[in-house]
Amino acid sequence: MQNEVRDYLLGLQARILDALETADGGARFRRDAWTRPPESALQGDGASSVIEDGALFERGGCNFSAVRGARLPPSATQHRPELAGAPFEAMGVSLVLHPRNPHVPTVHMNVRMLAAQPATREPVTWFGGGMDLTPYYGRVDDAVHFHTTCKRALDAVDEAYYPRFKRWCDEYFFLKHRGEARGIGGIFFDDFAEGGFERGFALMRATGDAFLDAYLPIVQRRRDEPWGERERAFQSLRRGRYVEFNLVWDRGTLFGLQSGGRTESILMSMPPQAAWRYDWAPEPGSAEAALYTDFLPPRDWAA
Amino acid sequence: MQNEVRDYLLGLQARILDALETADGGARFRRDAWTRPPESALQGDGASSVIEDGALFERGGCNFSAVRGARLPPSATQHRPELAGAPFEAMGVSLVLHPRNPHVPTVHMNVRMLAAQPATREPVTWFGGGMDLTPYYGRVDDAVHFHTTCKRALDAVDEAYYPRFKRWCDEYFFLKHRGEARGIGGIFFDDFAEGGFERGFALMRATGDAFLDAYLPIVQRRRDEPWGERERAFQSLRRGRYVEFNLVWDRGTLFGLQSGGRTESILMSMPPQAAWRYDWAPEPGSAEAALYTDFLPPRDWAA
Repeated sequence: MQNEVRDYLLGLQARILDALETADGGARFRRDAWTRPPESALQGDGASSVIEDGALFERGGCNFSAVRGARLPPSATQHRPELAGAPFEAMGVSLVLHPRNPHVPTVHMNVRMLAAQPATREPVTWFGGGMDLTPYYGRVDDAVHFHTTCKRALDAVDEAYYPRFKRWCDEYFFLKHRGEARGIGGIFFDDFAEGGFERGFALMRATGDAFLDAYLPIVQRRRDEPWGERERAFQSLRRGRYVEFNLVWDRGTLFGLQSGGRTESILMSMPPQAAWRYDWAPEPGSAEAALYTDFLPPRDWAA
Repeated sequence: MQNEVRDYLLGLQARILDALETADGGARFRRDAWTRPPESALQGDGASSVIEDGALFERGGCNFSAVRGARLPPSATQHRPELAGAPFEAMGVSLVLHPRNPHVPTVHMNVRMLAAQPATREPVTWFGGGMDLTPYYGRVDDAVHFHTTCKRALDAVDEAYYPRFKRWCDEYFFLKHRGEARGIGGIFFDDFAEGGFERGFALMRATGDAFLDAYLPIVQRRRDEPWGERERAFQSLRRGRYVEFNLVWDRGTLFGLQSGGRTESILMSMPPQAAWRYDWAPEPGSAEAALYTDFLPPRDWAA
């Protein structure tokens, strides 16, 4: 069971890296395999793949990791206190891409499985994941394409999933301290154990397999759009918001950093650069203002 | 009592702004007075002062705020659970300066007072604060000057304070996920109620009053040192670390952002820009490497 998921995740990572390197054309991912030192609380291995200064991608990564531990931390079992302290195994693929051209959106995708083996109960497996898009300049056709691709993928497993996981995504990727969404959302699910392993694994594959179809057509459409200093400055400020979300609110990032995870792998989600300005607001009526008024507020893009 | 502290803090802010504007020469602080809306959980007012694109300071701020609330949050009374839920008042001045020239260190200073008025006990007042220096290029004479000035200021109140608060600063401003200090430290104290109001207020004034003496001579010594792309790139990476500390570990920032504080005032501590590179390490023997080997590990600078 774990082997089946592991094989799927490694295959997914390989397919994605291959397609992204072809799309980039100018850079290759740097592969960094790692194994946890024997004395650490978590055991396991991983393969980080990072791209920097590509023709298309200014910075990004697609990481696989599989760790096991003797005691499941309480923060991972908020909804299942009976599993706290059980031996566990966790594996997943996580991806973030920051393109250089401000017309190409930043994207995030993650699929993960967690299995707990309590001494006196049946083992429990649950799944999490999703993908979401963070454009700098909002485009209706991109948003519709991204969400429609997510919807189609999840509909093939269960038609109830897309509306539910789309809403969850809008709620999760939200900067509460700014009252502002991180981007235009997508899908997000966590702690998913309905229908047992088979159903969860099907949901994981539906999500992972849809990523390239959801994202690459948008890249191809936007990559040659011209941009200048104005677009770049706006991208930098928006990247600052991305940093704020990931470091202040993202549970995976915080849990990883505070529990001794591999810092450089976790922080591959950071943009290559970011900027902050006091009380900055876009000029009313501008393309930058349209992001705030027409794209960040949750909308039903796949209607 | 509260009025006396308020007057001191407003005077301190005015003195600092004045001296910094004179030092900058090229920009003025933008003053932004604010009052909490009547419906919010916290009541109070403040004066944010932000500088951006100055000749010397690329971004920075010096904020005063005074808030009161009906119920002290548990996170503010970890060491005094008997005060949780009591009406309270908090006021302080907080400063962060990010100079443009990578040879001029970033600096942070903060002084604050918290007073709780429980219904059935005596009111309790405690103090917190400190200042710490974050150089990009370490210089022994700067580190000695900064720490010696801090020591001299605290010695005048009690000779036991500097060693104790210097160690506390080293422990507090530490990026656990990188095993790395934020800078070369300084002094830090929190939850200070020893000797009552008079002693705490004396400690606050000793700290606040020493700031300009501790920092400005370093600015004057370094502001005309030439720098280029290499220094600027290193500064950007180190600014990324500053962002990581403030958003992941700093209790004041997290508490402020998560409890509905004024985001733009809290995040005046963010640098104007920051950068991230995968697994970056300085060239052995370089000035950049010396920061890591000779300056970030805690040292007894005021010996």
